[in-house]
Order: sequence, then C-alpha cells, then structure tokens
Amino acid sequence: MKNFTFESPTKIIFGKNRIHDLAAEILAYGNRVLMVYGGQSIQQNGLYTQITEHLKENDISVFELAGVQPNPRLESVRAGIELCKTYEVDFILAVGGGSVIDCSKAIAAGVTYSGDVWDFFIRKAKIENALPIGSVLTLAATGSEMNGGTVISNPETSEKRPAGSDLLKPKFSILDPTLTFTVNKYLTSAGVVDVMSHIFEQYFTPDQGTTLQDHIAEAILKTCIQYGPVLMDDPENYEARSNIMWASSLALNGLTVTGKMYGDWATHYIEHELSAYYDLTHGAGLAILFPVWMNYVLDEKRAFKFAAYARNVWGVTIENDMEAALEGIAKTKAFFKEIGMPASLGEANIDDSKFDSMVEGACKFGPIGMFRKLNKEDVKNILTSAL
Amino acid sequence: MKNFTFESPTKIIFGKNRIHDLAAEILAYGNRVLMVYGGQSIQQNGLYTQITEHLKENDISVFELAGVQPNPRLESVRAGIELCKTYEVDFILAVGGGSVIDCSKAIAAGVTYSGDVWDFFIRKAKIENALPIGSVLTLAATGSEMNGGTVISNPETSEKRPAGSDLLKPKFSILDPTLTFTVNKYLTSAGVVDVMSHIFEQYFTPDQGTTLQDHIAEAILKTCIQYGPVLMDDPENYEARSNIMWASSLALNGLTVTGKMYGDWATHYIEHELSAYYDLTHGAGLAILFPVWMNYVLDEKRAFKFAAYARNVWGVTIENDMEAALEGIAKTKAFFKEIGMPASLGEANIDDSKFDSMVEGACKFGPIGMFRKLNKEDVKNILTSAL
Repeated sequence: MKNFTFESPTKIIFGKNRIHDLAAEILAYGNRVLMVYGGQSIQQNGLYTQITEHLKENDISVFELAGVQPNPRLESVRAGIELCKTYEVDFILAVGGGSVIDCSKAIAAGVTYSGDVWDFFIRKAKIENALPIGSVLTLAATGSEMNGGTVISNPETSEKRPAGSDLLKPKFSILDPTLTFTVNKYLTSAGVVDVMSHIFEQYFTPDQGTTLQDHIAEAILKTCIQYGPVLMDDPENYEARSNIMWASSLALNGLTVTGKMYGDWATHYIEHELSAYYDLTHGAGLAILFPVWMNYVLDEKRAFKFAAYARNVWGVTIENDMEAALEGIAKTKAFFKEIGMPASLGEANIDDSKFDSMVEGACKFGPIGMFRKLNKEDVKNILTSAL
Repeated sequence: MKNFTFESPTKIIFGKNRIHDLAAEILAYGNRVLMVYGGQSIQQNGLYTQITEHLKENDISVFELAGVQPNPRLESVRAGIELCKTYEVDFILAVGGGSVIDCSKAIAAGVTYSGDVWDFFIRKAKIENALPIGSVLTLAATGSEMNGGTVISNPETSEKRPAGSDLLKPKFSILDPTLTFTVNKYLTSAGVVDVMSHIFEQYFTPDQGTTLQDHIAEAILKTCIQYGPVLMDDPENYEARSNIMWASSLALNGLTVTGKMYGDWATHYIEHELSAYYDLTHGAGLAILFPVWMNYVLDEKRAFKFAAYARNVWGVTIENDMEAALEGIAKTKAFFKEIGMPASLGEANIDDSKFDSMVEGACKFGPIGMFRKLNKEDVKNILTSAL
C-alpha cells in the first residue's frame, strides 16, 4: 500500500425530499447563486419550480445558465463565467447529472482566472482558486457530485479533456434517488456502466497489497450488478435507485484508489475520443470498450487480478487464473448486453474513419494506462477490436 | 435505505514518515498546542522527541498532558481542560490510540463549556463548541481518529459513557502503519476485534435494502480476518498493518451506517460495564461478548442476516439460513480464539459478583440494542452465558 492523503469533505444529503435542506446549505456560502442545468426535464418534472421558489423564499438571488449538454461544452463554461462576473455570483448550484456538475466546476474555476478557462484542460495553467459549488444530483453515473474532477469538450478542436482540483469538490450534494425515477433505460444503464468503469479504472492497477480497497471496489461492483437489471423492469424501485446512487458517489470519491499510485484510466482516455467525435453517451462507449480492453491487456502476469475480479464479484469458481479471468470478462460483456448497452462500435454506428485522429488525441500526452501502458498502436488495436 | 447525512471531513494523511506533514497541518488552526499522550512508549520509541522537535522547529508552542490511561478517565480530561485554559491553547494534538484521542476530544469539548465536562456524558448538556483537534495514531482499533465520538470513564461512579459531536471530528489524522509495529500481540488482536465489532454493531440492524453498505462492511471484515492472524507471527508486516489501520478508520467513520437508523451497540454498552468495573481491554471484552450476543439474538426472523454474514465473510456454503448462521458464529468465536483473545469472562478472571450493577448500568437509559431490543433480564442472561 502506497502513502496517500484522503480528504472527502463533501457533505452528502441523501434521501427523499432532502431538497428542503438546499437553501440552508447554500446560505453558509453566499446568496447570489448561478443555477446551472441542462434541458427541459427539470422544468417538466417540477424540480425547476421547486428549487427556484425555495431559494427565493429564502432571499437567495438566482441567475441561470440553462442548456448544458451531455459532454458539456466549452462555450457553456465561458457563458457561465460571464454570468458570474456580470451578476457577482458567490455560489454555483448544479442541478443535473455529471455534465452539469462538470460544467459548473469549470465555471467555478474560470471565474477568478485571468486567462482562458481552457488553459486548465490543456495543462497550461493550474486551478488555484474557485467559487464554492453544490449540487442537486438527477443522474447516478459520474461521481462528479463527490469529487474535484471535471471533463469538458471543445468542439472546435474535437477535444474532450479532464481537469481537477480539491477546490472543485462540491461543498454539498443532495442525492434524492426519487429524482432518478424518470431516467430512461438507456441512460440508467449507461450510468451503471459508468459507475462500474470508475471502479475498473481503480481496481485494475499494478499496485499490491491494497486488499481493503479492492474488497470495497468489489462491494460497489456487486451492488451495481445486483440492481442494474432490477431497474430495467422497475425504474421506480427505490432500493435499487438508492443503492446505485450512493454507489456512483463512492465509486469516484477517492476511496478505492487510496494506497494506489493512480488509476489506469486508459479506457476513459480512449472513450473520451469516441464521445469527442461522435457525441456518444459516455457509459455506452465504456460498455463497448471495457471488455475489449480487458481482453487486450490480459496476459499471464495480469491474470491473477482478473481472476480475483471474476471470483469475488461474479462468483466464478474456476481454479485456473487465466480461465477464471476469461470467464469474468465474458460475464462483464454479457452483463452490459443484458442491460441494453451496445457491444461494438458498429452497433453505435461508428466506423474506423476517425481512428487515426482518435489515437493521436488519446495519446496526446504520451502512452496511456497504468495496469498496462498503451502506445498508439495498442490504442488502434483496441479500437479495431471494438468495431 | 433510510435518509441520511454523511460528512467525513477528517483529512487522512496515511503512510510512512507522514509525521513530517504535522506542523503544516497544525498551523492552519493554531500554534499553541496541547499534546496529549499516554505512557512511556512514545518516549521509548523516539516518537515523542521526533514530534516535539518538529513542532518547535516550526515555532509551535507545546504543552503536555501525559499519562492518559486505557479507558481514559475523567480526571485526565479535567486536567487537560485546566492546561488549555492556563496556557491559552488553540489546538489539541492526540498522540496515541483511541483512549488518547477520546480524552483529547473530551478536553476539546470541555474547554469552552462553563459547566462540568461530565455533563456531556450523562446527557445533561450538548456539545456546542470545541477546540480543533488532530491525531497521530499509534494503535489501530477504535476509529476515533476519523469520527466525532468519545468514551470516558468515571471511576468515582464506575461509569464508562459515550458522547459525541461533529465538532469533535479531528481536522486531520496521521496514520503511519509503522508506528503500530511495536504494538504487542494482545493489543493488536484486541484492536482487530474492536474494528470487527464496530462493523458488527452497524451490520446487524433491522434495516433493509442497505446492500452497498453491507457489502462494504463485509469488505472490512474480510480484511481483518485475512490480516489479523498474519500479525500474530509477523508484527512488522507493513501490508497487514496498513490494511488493518485503514480498516479501523473506515469501520467507524459513518460510512457503513449510512442509510440505517442507527447501529445496534448493545454489546458495546455491556462491554463498557465490564471495562468500567474491571479495566479490561475493550477489544478483549468484545471478543468474549460478541459470539454470546450473536447466539442470544439469533432466531428464525434474524437468521437471514447472520447467514449472509457467514456466506459473504466466511465463505460458508450451507444453504439453510439457521445452520449457516450458526456456522458463521462458530467461525467468529474460533477466529477470536485463534488470535489469542479470551473466550469467556472466566478466562479474564471476571465472576458474576458485579453482574447486577452492570445490568443496571448498561440499561441506565432503558433497554439497549436495535437488532433485538435487550432489557435487563436479557443483559443478565448474556453476561451469564459469557461466564
């Protein structure tokens, strides 16, 4: 186990009707709020009205940035920064899923920065200051509600890049599982895949002796596998929604990577290229890529870890490590198919025409991955196997 | 899953030589420190000198409260409060195990309170203010390093009582597993039992649908079961010490009780009576009592939960719930024996002479326990079965 520092200060306010706590939480930080959200769903389901009225009743001024898209775009971030400056906003409230929260974080980082906010994503500048943010989560997937990471897309350059800072960790996140009742099957499944993928990235690493962290990772995976299929038939199952929602936050708040050098993240880098070029739902792209990545990096040296995954998560009882590993990967692929995710790029109408650009993009800063380092040829091979 | 609020702001600074970070962490809060510690072990192993020199080099004034005992006593707390007032201390640093941290928390709560600090423990007053505290952990057991709870003994009244507040959560805790290399076998085992017992108290509850939390609880238990015996033969095994140390913090930081009404805690209430009267090591008392409690509360209605424990933690494959439950309890008892813990009160030289007073003490505020409510007769039966 490697040395680590773990700090997860986000206050989690979990359960039915916890939206009533919102104003009190915000008022600890400010009373001029930029409310960031996506499409019309929160207007249609009444959440928009509920929140804005609640805030106004508590003398909180609300300014709005609407229309944040999945794979949130740089132009939304820039628009949000302008709004914050114009209206002297002192708190940013994200109401939505990971895209809305990520956009809010980028705005929070950009407001006090004198240069262009994209600098943080191309590693030209470091985040040194940020407005406080909070979130009301409406989609269980990215874990952005409990960490300091953000991923923004720049359509001008076909880039989708991450940035992060402890300063961007939400002060609080309200997690009401009933707010995810109306999420459709496809996005629900993509969310489950996203949660599982965050665990994969942190589980399949070269680190040794992180038994506790790996068992916790397995606990999160088992929970996803139990409840994902339940939601296909019963989208308003509170037990399933609540377990998946809490799993989404714990999967990427730093807990399962404690004692490890870093996660692998190669598959995420490759997927970011897919969704930069095709605007594919992140979880769907991960569902296509992860079984391919697993098969590609599996070898005698790494079989023990995939075998542990197969046994502890899927109950595989095969004694031979390599055979157990292959069985675990096959079960993973079958599970993603069972919950309605595409199994190949072809199923997502993606061909090989952009592969060369994607390979360059994924390896822009050099080889990727920690469990097994992947160069451009490897990335091309993985994409080709995913066709 | 019930509504919950989860907030775990303690910064965990984990690994070898992290003591070098100490002064910088303290200086965020103050520079007049009361250093609280126990016996001579930190003087013998050099930690005392290392810390005091490091703090002085960083212009931090250090005042000292030494001699805090296991099952920390009210008189130490009162002495610490006086020192804080006399020297205008602005930060309390606990260097030790749970007893030292608990004592430090009680001091922190008492400094700004106008009444007697014992009021917090007999539910006469609520903690509304506290000095900031930090810890350097030297024993993996209580989890006090990452929560807001404290347990103090009052020898005058033979009482050992808990109190707690979010205000008492350490700002940071330094967890260097090498500092536990010299902990003897008995205290190492008692620590492992303590960690497992915290999980038991939060796992065996009437709550339904907390699958994620229960799987995380099982992850912590499996880790204790894997590494506890390793430390019997190899006390300087870093992998084992580090897994047990991180497990101790995660076992009682609120994570595994999220979505549940409250833990059971009946066994802890009974054990507090034992160690109030006999100054028994807390973990040893728990090792005696827990298998007895499990057998006592086990019935058809509760068998499914003990069966889940047996299967998911111990790999029991028996299909019948009651039989699986009994097998899991037997394995628990055998494990505690394997790591050198006493299996009965008799082995700890405790007879039934104080049982009536203990029963009164344990039920001072009414029946105890959530999984199955225990009245005075039940507590007496459990103590008698433990003889």
